Amino acid sequence: MNKGRVNRLIDEMKNQGLEQMLVSSPASIFYLTGKWIEPGERMLALYININGASKLLVNELFPIHEDLGVEILWHNDTKNPIDDLLKVVHKDKKLGVDKNWPAHFLISLMERNGANGYANGSKIVDTIRMRKDEQEKELMRKASKLNDEAIDKVIKNLSMNKTEKQVCREIGESFEEMNTQGNSFAPIVGYGANGADPHHDSDASLPKAGDTVIIDMGCRNENYCSDMTRTVFLGEPTEEGKKVYNTVLEANRAGIAAVKPGVRFCDIDKAARDVIEKAGYGKYFTHRTGHSIGIEVHDFGDVSAVNKAKVEPGMIFSIEPGVYLSGNLGVRIEDLVMVTEDGCEVLNNYTKEMIVL
Amino acid sequence: MNKGRVNRLIDEMKNQGLEQMLVSSPASIFYLTGKWIEPGERMLALYININGASKLLVNELFPIHEDLGVEILWHNDTKNPIDDLLKVVHKDKKLGVDKNWPAHFLISLMERNGANGYANGSKIVDTIRMRKDEQEKELMRKASKLNDEAIDKVIKNLSMNKTEKQVCREIGESFEEMNTQGNSFAPIVGYGANGADPHHDSDASLPKAGDTVIIDMGCRNENYCSDMTRTVFLGEPTEEGKKVYNTVLEANRAGIAAVKPGVRFCDIDKAARDVIEKAGYGKYFTHRTGHSIGIEVHDFGDVSAVNKAKVEPGMIFSIEPGVYLSGNLGVRIEDLVMVTEDGCEVLNNYTKEMIVL
Repeated sequence: MNKGRVNRLIDEMKNQGLEQMLVSSPASIFYLTGKWIEPGERMLALYININGASKLLVNELFPIHEDLGVEILWHNDTKNPIDDLLKVVHKDKKLGVDKNWPAHFLISLMERNGANGYANGSKIVDTIRMRKDEQEKELMRKASKLNDEAIDKVIKNLSMNKTEKQVCREIGESFEEMNTQGNSFAPIVGYGANGADPHHDSDASLPKAGDTVIIDMGCRNENYCSDMTRTVFLGEPTEEGKKVYNTVLEANRAGIAAVKPGVRFCDIDKAARDVIEKAGYGKYFTHRTGHSIGIEVHDFGDVSAVNKAKVEPGMIFSIEPGVYLSGNLGVRIEDLVMVTEDGCEVLNNYTKEMIVL
Repeated sequence: MNKGRVNRLIDEMKNQGLEQMLVSSPASIFYLTGKWIEPGERMLALYININGASKLLVNELFPIHEDLGVEILWHNDTKNPIDDLLKVVHKDKKLGVDKNWPAHFLISLMERNGANGYANGSKIVDTIRMRKDEQEKELMRKASKLNDEAIDKVIKNLSMNKTEKQVCREIGESFEEMNTQGNSFAPIVGYGANGADPHHDSDASLPKAGDTVIIDMGCRNENYCSDMTRTVFLGEPTEEGKKVYNTVLEANRAGIAAVKPGVRFCDIDKAARDVIEKAGYGKYFTHRTGHSIGIEVHDFGDVSAVNKAKVEPGMIFSIEPGVYLSGNLGVRIEDLVMVTEDGCEVLNNYTKEMIVL
């Protein structure tokens, strides 16, 4: 167990008036114990009490050989893990549970009066996970550095006879060759009009001369994620292509310039969005400006108009404005930033100058 | 909405004494409506009442252009979908919910007294999904036929200088070239001792002469899955290798021969397991004999010693005995079978004779 992280969790539980909770997301359990377990349909839960008691409930299918500093209660496919939960949960107290805990576990626990009420406890873990500690900052820098190196190769290897899917495959292979854990999400490569769908499923399309190419990619390395987008031109861009590119680049820079402790996420969104609106493309910037990232490629907390929370040192999120002109082109430029005491450190260093191939 | 399937669902709800339920798994919603929606963290739920009323609750991020034959209640990120649920759920009745519905939706609904108790309603949908209708049978035959074709190419292309990962990549590429939806699960390729871990993560290992090669692969085509395993030898097998192969092949055939309506899943497991035990390898067959398959590669219902349910016509599942000798080799031979009126139809036709390359 990572003592510092568990103590921050307990402090936050006290702030929220919650005496006991079950952490069940594999990412949060990794964050607290250092052990990543993907239990599939089996139960996995870390019980935490503010008095310091903790137990990890795991199916024997997922053996743990190291000492995690927490007592483990083992179950198997012929033994109901709810029996173990009833032994550790205080039935006279409310229980916090993770937002995505499968309903059937909760229903089974309720049917046996496991606790005195239930609350969504996720926000407690999600909030402390937003503020990265020194070890995490180092891992996040490393993952983005690898992403910088990989995109350089990908852009140099673009050609008129490679389909979007082929380029996606090369991205995955690069990350494997670099001995990372592979893609942190399915990469997006979109030529020309395909790039006008921000979540385009890369397909067998080939590029046409003059196309924009959106490349959105990231790796998972030592369980931490990177995520970056660049847009390049295959041949001389049109006047509109240039204008859109420069607008998005200015929005990306304005978003980054707005990041410092105390500023609200919605203000950062506005800083980027204002640039695009002023250029007349406001309605073509159809998504939020960014999302938190860390152990998961989409950690809790987004850079959007509705998030009034203030940013704090150690938070890491993306700044990724885009303009999508249906049937024509898409441009998105994305960097990860880490909030420092007086501004932010940009984790991506791959050039953002317009690249024409 | 597929009327036949919805009617079977309502019949089963009546059998179980449940008047209303929420179906939330994307696969089950596809099964009932014909529409596949992956809502990520957003809410997706199909409300079904035994009086025939039904509503689909969807986030506007997932537009639906076709008429699904069910009224849709749209929400968005600034509108709480629980408000919609409160309008459709009868609060004086118990509500069935899907096993994997995220706990925070259930907690929010409970906090607002949405229903008079909650039950795990999954088994109802899962059970009817086990018995495939004619349309599904045809799709399952087709997916397995594609898998037969793909594995032939994979086996012909094996060579001493391809890593496990490279072969896995070729499998995915084959399925793409065949215009399927790709792998139905991450394929497993295990050389020699790596194959002794039934869930081996394929890596950069190269084969050695004489190695067994386990190849476990399947595609998703028109939303239905195939899944097959073959084991081949790279060079002359040892006496033990031959004995293990022939034992597993006999177990596979014995399992298949046991399949007919009225037989219990545990009896099929026993038929395969007995062969392996008699040959002295009982403790090296470390997993269940098979699993149901359809829209999901692991549908509900397994072929295992603890499943006392009886098989019925239209059910489709795998028969996949294996023997795993740690540090040495692994052999698994897997086919999909479809229960008929008096036996079963084997969906895989790729040879099971010992292949020595």
